Order: sequence, then structure tokens, then C-alpha cells
Amino acid sequence: MREKTDHVLDRMVFFSDAVFAIAITLLVIEIHVPDLPHGASDAQYLAALHELIPSFAGYIISFAIVAAFWAVHHRAFALAERYHQRVLLLNMLLLGMVAFVPFASAFISHNMGDRVPSVFYCATLAVTAALNAGVVWIATGPQMASAKAAGADRWAVRSRSLGLLLGSATAVAVTFVAPLYGQFALVTTRIWQRLLASRKVAD
Amino acid sequence: MREKTDHVLDRMVFFSDAVFAIAITLLVIEIHVPDLPHGASDAQYLAALHELIPSFAGYIISFAIVAAFWAVHHRAFALAERYHQRVLLLNMLLLGMVAFVPFASAFISHNMGDRVPSVFYCATLAVTAALNAGVVWIATGPQMASAKAAGADRWAVRSRSLGLLLGSATAVAVTFVAPLYGQFALVTTRIWQRLLASRKVAD
Amino acid sequence: MREKTDHVLDRMVFFSDAVFAIAITLLVIEIHVPDLPHGASDAQYLAALHELIPSFAGYIISFAIVAAFWAVHHRAFALAERYHQRVLLLNMLLLGMVAFVPFASAFISHNMGDRVPSVFYCATLAVTAALNAGVVWIATGPQMASAKAAGADRWAVRSRSLGLLLGSATAVAVTFVAPLYGQFALVTTRIWQRLLASRKVAD
Amino acid sequence: MREKTDHVLDRMVFFSDAVFAIAITLLVIEIHVPDLPHGASDAQYLAALHELIPSFAGYIISFAIVAAFWAVHHRAFALAERYHQRVLLLNMLLLGMVAFVPFASAFISHNMGDRVPSVFYCATLAVTAALNAGVVWIATGPQMASAKAAGADRWAVRSRSLGLLLGSATAVAVTFVAPLYGQFALVTTRIWQRLLASRKVAD
Repeated sequence: MREKTDHVLDRMVFFSDAVFAIAITLLVIEIHVPDLPHGASDAQYLAALHELIPSFAGYIISFAIVAAFWAVHHRAFALAERYHQRVLLLNMLLLGMVAFVPFASAFISHNMGDRVPSVFYCATLAVTAALNAGVVWIATGPQMASAKAAGADRWAVRSRSLGLLLGSATAVAVTFVAPLYGQFALVTTRIWQRLLASRKVAD
Repeated sequence: MREKTDHVLDRMVFFSDAVFAIAITLLVIEIHVPDLPHGASDAQYLAALHELIPSFAGYIISFAIVAAFWAVHHRAFALAERYHQRVLLLNMLLLGMVAFVPFASAFISHNMGDRVPSVFYCATLAVTAALNAGVVWIATGPQMASAKAAGADRWAVRSRSLGLLLGSATAVAVTFVAPLYGQFALVTTRIWQRLLASRKVAD
Repeated sequence: MREKTDHVLDRMVFFSDAVFAIAITLLVIEIHVPDLPHGASDAQYLAALHELIPSFAGYIISFAIVAAFWAVHHRAFALAERYHQRVLLLNMLLLGMVAFVPFASAFISHNMGDRVPSVFYCATLAVTAALNAGVVWIATGPQMASAKAAGADRWAVRSRSLGLLLGSATAVAVTFVAPLYGQFALVTTRIWQRLLASRKVAD
Repeated sequence: MREKTDHVLDRMVFFSDAVFAIAITLLVIEIHVPDLPHGASDAQYLAALHELIPSFAGYIISFAIVAAFWAVHHRAFALAERYHQRVLLLNMLLLGMVAFVPFASAFISHNMGDRVPSVFYCATLAVTAALNAGVVWIATGPQMASAKAAGADRWAVRSRSLGLLLGSATAVAVTFVAPLYGQFALVTTRIWQRLLASRKVAD
């Protein structure tokens, strides 16, 4: 079976890509088209669009965060060259959370600013981020990564996955105090990623 | 046409992966976002989430079982190196059942504990498992498998597919007596798989 | 650009596979979960499932026909080795019809036996079949097919695509007279395919 | 990591294809099956279909425009042979807009002829076209394109992406004046593309 290992890895990566792509595209299904009588005035339409702003904001944030999860996953597996069965279960748990994000996103978008939906959404992302970091760790570790992958390259990917975890954990914390601002605290991800990336690593 | 055979096999595997990935990601669509007035209290939200527990449980179970079907399919085709047309029809029937799982899952989740939806759901899985085992048998058999695939490797995959079939058949049986526990009987899959895997096979 | 041609063909085939896979998996979304009070009797559930029989039949028929379209498309492109731009537009029109099938399928399933939905559904399939045959013709023709593809192999694929067209045209005709039986007339596809396949072709 | 670069590019292209394919197939979900009593007359069904004409027109137009975006993207990446990280963010923004098209399409289809939905739809396409042109520019530029790609080939792709941008910008302009005709102004895309394609380029 040795010679088919790459194929096994490729198919798992492909399956993951498909789930990420479907989940990210399903996010839009939760934005409901406003139901206005035909011939409604421009003002009525603009008011209807105005009411959808939380949904649009939720779409943008969720799309950005799922895209960020995918980008890190993508970079990690670019360093992997061998399949190891330890990654399969963890990756499936990750995909189960990724596929669940559209629900959490719809829940917060329809109830913007309320505590429970906000905590629920940020906690969903934090669990997803933890699983993502776990998968990234294995894929860039000795069991799967190419021996030619430099320590710096591996840390570049790992630090991004950690940044996503710290960013979403920050969002969970903020959301308890100020529900409306929780999901915007996800932008701290970039700060965490820069702090972590600056840490020196031995090659 | 000989030299394009691999391509034909790859495209069928790809199509199967896509259907598995879409079906598994559509499972979440059946969890409906609770409709609460804006500014509802934390207690109201928690009560609404509490009512969704059957849906969450259904999502987790269905995701896990479809993932298990996929994983066995994935392992079986990793051993296959030749396309054989016998597999095409059976694989299409399998995909038709896999794509149907989101309906059966929604049916049981919305009516947790009632007999008909529980039997319907478990029977759907049992039929899917039977078709999956059939596809696995052909893909790991002499018509498709690599001559280099060891008997032990082939049995490892086949025993998993049989375990899924016995596990879902157990769930059908349990569900007639105790509808609420039927889908949890799916965990017996792991026991069946271990029992079967321990059986010696000639290489 | 010559050396990238295969890549262009592969990507078009991949995109087509994805649209086929998504359309076939979306068919199930149109089967609505029956809404019964919790604790409804077995008899009530069975009655609810009984009412869904047209939806289940519609799902099976539509799944089978889309799978048949895919299988022919798959076989035709297995014979193709060169990309030719003539196929792109026709293939896109085909995909537009394939993606439309879930709507037509839901329309007939919710109104089983009525003339307009039945004709609409069968006509949708006939147009799809005509486009499919056009794509198959180009993919197996001199502009795209491998020179090594035998005439018999090419006719085997082409005759299947013609059979699908004649089968769905038969269904349109039957449906005007007997709406309920129109979609079942799709099974004549197999007869047409056998008749056509038996025709001799020069290699 | 050098030797894995192609793999990185392939996976990004694959992910993009999947999002395009899902978005284009989801367009049909927004056409709602007419809800008529069983046994309604042919005239009632035809009236119901007649009312759906804006939805059908919207489906055709949106399918055609997303297909055109995909085709240009596809041609641009056929010229690319190297991954460059500049393209990742822009491509993700593009995919976020592509995945949003089904919402905008449903909005205009349900409110055909009203100004706000028409402007909203055409503006969505214009932003998508601008991002698409940006991605095409990078993919066919010195950072990513094959050195063997002729200037004429690169301009052929770029001029198409510019044509889509000018066509959708024209649609935005027309739609302010005559909302009903805005989306039909998208056909000017072909005129813009021909005008641009005729421009000479140095190789």
C-alpha cells in the first residue's frame, strides 16, 4: 500500500476542501430575501436592506473566518507529504465544526447583540480553531511533514493557527461582557498572529 | 481506451467524494435557527437551545456515520487500481442513499423518540451500509484491487464495512423496542468492527 | 499554451462533475420533512410517509436520470484527450439545465399526475438530454477524441446519449396523454439504448 | 517548499472551482415551486409558471454571468504556472462575492423592475467583476504567468475580464434610469469584449 499513500492524503485534502467550500457558500442561504410588496418605494427597499445589515456583517465575518481556517489548513498540508492516520479523526471533527458554522452564523445574525447567540457563535469558532490547530500541528509535525520543510515554514503555519485560536478565545471573552462587540474582537487574530510569528524558532 | 482507465476510476471516486461532502455539509441545513424576539432574555435563549438538543445530537450522529461511510469508501478505493464497470451502478445506488441521509436525519431529529422516524432513519442507514459494503467488496476484490494489496489490508477494509452494516442492523432492531435508543445503538459498530477485524485471514 | 491544454480540459470536466454532484444532492432538499405533533401515533407517521411517496418516487427517478446523464458525460470525456473551445458553451448550457432539474423535480413531485408539471419536467429532461448529446458528440468527435478511440467505443457512448434523448422525448409524448405515467416512460431509455447500440458502426 | 508550489496553486484553483460550482447550482434554490391545490387546472398551472418568468429570467442571467466569470478565471489560471501569495486574498474576496450572487439574484428576481433591487444586483456583479479582473491581472502577470504565455494570449483573457467589468458597470448605469432593463444591459459585455479584444498588443 505504500505507493498509494499520497493518493490517500490527496483524497482527504480534497474532501476537506469540498466541505470548506460548501460550508462557506452555504453561509449566504441564511440571509433571507426581504419580502416586500411589488412596487414598494425606494425608501422601503432601503429600509429593508438596512435591517439586513447584521446579516451582511455576519456573512462577511463568517466568510472571512472560514476562509482563514481554510488558508491555514491549505498551507499546513502544502508542507505535508505523508498521510498519517492520526490526522483523519481530528480532521473529521474539524470538518464537522466547519459544516456547523452556517448554523451558528445564522443564529448570531438574526439576534445581533444578544448574549447567548454571541457566545454560542464565538465558542463555535473557538472549538473549530482548536481542532484546526490540532490538525495543523500533526500535518506540519514529524509524522506527516516533508523532511525538507524548514522549521521557520512550519512555525509560520502553526503560529497562524494559534493566532486564530487566541483570536476566537478573545472573542468569547469579550462577548460575555459586550455581546455586540464579540465577533468584531475576532480581528485581534491578526495581532496574535503577528506576535506569535515574531517568535524565533530553531530550524 | 486502456490507458484512460485510471482516469475513469479517478473521476468516479471524485464524483463520490463530492456527493459525500455535499450530503454531510447539508445535514446542518435541517437545524432551524430558533425564532426569538429581539432582546429575548438569556434564559429564553438557553431554553431555545435546549429544545434543539435532539437536532444537535442528530447532526453529530449523522455526521459521524456519513464520515465513517466515507472513510471506508476512501480506504477501499486506495486499494483499487483498476476501474470495473460492475462498481458503477452499485456506487450510484450508494450515492443515492448517502444523498438521502439528510432527509432521514431531519425526520428523526424533529421527532426524537418516536418509533416510525427512528426505524426509518436506522433502516436508511442499514440500506446505505449494505450498498457501501457491496461497493467495498468489489473495489477490494480481484476485479479492481491492486495485486500488491495484501489480504490483511483488504480484510481490514472489508471488516469495517461489515461492522457498519451490523451496527446499523443492530440499531434497526433496538429501535423497534426502544425508539429513543436506536440511533445510539449505532455505536455498536465499533464492537462489531473489532470482533471482525480480529478474525484471521489468509493472505 | 499547448502544454496546458490537458489542464484546461481537466478543469472543465471537474467543474462539470461538481455541478452534477451538487444538483443530484440538492434533489433531496425538495422533500419536506412531515410536520407532526410530538408523540404522534405510528399510524399518523405511516400516513405522512405515504403522502410523501410521490416525492420519494420523484427523487429516485430524478437521481437516476441525472446519474445517467453524468455517466454518459463521464464516458464521453474518458475518450477525449484534447480541449476544444466549441464544447465550452454547450457544456455550460448543459450544466445550466442540470442545475435546473431540482426545481422541475420538485414541481412534478408536489403535483404528481397533473399535466403541466409533468410536461414541464419531461421537457426539462429532454432539453437537458439534447444538450448532453451535443456535448457527447463533440467530446467523442475528431476535434477532441483520442485517435486511439475505436469507432465502436465512440458509438457506444453516443448511442447512450441518443437513447437518453429518445427516452425523454417519449416521456414528453406520453405525458401529454397520461400525465401520471410520463416520468415512468423514461425507462424506455434502456430500450432505445439497446436498439441503438445494436446498430453496426464502421471503425 | 519550492517543489510544492504547483500543488498550492492547484488547491487554490480547485477551491475556487468548487465555490463557483456551488454558487451557480444554488441559484435554482431561490426559484420557489408554485403552491397550487392538487388537481389545479392547466390554466392555473400556466398562470403560476407565467408568474415565475422573472425568476427564470433571473436564473438564466445569473447562471450566464457566473459562468462567464468562471470561464475567464479558468482561462487566466491556465496561463499561470506559479503561485504567488498576492492572489490569495483577492481571490478570497472574489469568492465571497461569487457566493453572494445567489442572494442578489433572488432579491432582483422577486422584485423585478424595482430600482433598489436592480441597482443592488448590478452593483454586486460590478464589484465581483472588478475583483475578478484583479485576480485575472495577477494570474496573467509576471508574478504568476508562464514565461511561454504570449502577450496576445494574456490580453485575450484580460480583455474578457475588463469586458465583464464594463458590461456590469453599464448595467449599473442603465438600472438607475430604467430598472427593468438594467440586467439585460449585461449583454453589452460582449460588445465591450470585442472592442477591447481588437486592441493590438505587443507580445
